[in-house]
Amino acid sequence: MLQTFKAKARKLPAGMQVETSSRNFKILIDEPQSLGGTDIAMSPVEALLAALGACQTIVAAAFAKAHDFSFEEFHVELEGDLDSDGFMGKSDVRPGFQEIRFSMHFKTTESQEKAEAFAAFIEKTCPVGDSLAHGVNLVLTEVVRE
Amino acid sequence: MLQTFKAKARKLPAGMQVETSSRNFKILIDEPQSLGGTDIAMSPVEALLAALGACQTIVAAAFAKAHDFSFEEFHVELEGDLDSDGFMGKSDVRPGFQEIRFSMHFKTTESQEKAEAFAAFIEKTCPVGDSLAHGVNLVLTEVVRE
Repeated sequence: MLQTFKAKARKLPAGMQVETSSRNFKILIDEPQSLGGTDIAMSPVEALLAALGACQTIVAAAFAKAHDFSFEEFHVELEGDLDSDGFMGKSDVRPGFQEIRFSMHFKTTESQEKAEAFAAFIEKTCPVGDSLAHGVNLVLTEVVRE
Repeated sequence: MLQTFKAKARKLPAGMQVETSSRNFKILIDEPQSLGGTDIAMSPVEALLAALGACQTIVAAAFAKAHDFSFEEFHVELEGDLDSDGFMGKSDVRPGFQEIRFSMHFKTTESQEKAEAFAAFIEKTCPVGDSLAHGVNLVLTEVVRE
């Protein structure tokens, strides 16, 4: 079933603080002081890594039973390389992430082989991971002056 | 300068709740009840849209002066299409977003032409947008049983 998900992002008066919202939920985003922010929240690229890890975690929780895989605890550690010269216009390197690496950690009595097969399923199935791995058609629909 | 950004995501005991963290900041993620969650926070795909909008908002704030573009207020509205049959394994449609659309809203006295040129710069420069538009090399480095 095709669904449309929505969000908003609104600049707050202070520096680079942003209030994002989706349905009735809000997430604050900021930049560290080294990048001109006030450092009250994660930066957008950190929030992107967090969304990817959350997506993988939810796939693990949602599909464990169907895969006859049981675990007591699960977490993901993520890191991504980004050259800020691209963002700052100092070089023609891409502004986005060059690579994102992640490790999955299960507290489980299942075999390593079974854990690796389930991890591969999680990687492939996670919607945020698929969006990043294969790209998405981004469309600027309108620029509105108010 | 190449920088490495980090985050973690950890399954909480309740249902599909996830605690994500980066540096000393946390963001909770959940799913709506219709998808088996407890609906206490944005879902991962909503958080992805929020991260994209926040990134564009910060680029607008950071680069306005250099582009001789002034505005009093700025916000982005985003929406993305995703077919949950892909995620659920009910069809071979991709699990990720098929398209993400966004509109940028400036409260400004600048011309429409100048606003559109600045919006195009924002779209191109935002690291989260570049990551999504052009894809990222995702690497599962390790599956650890604890």
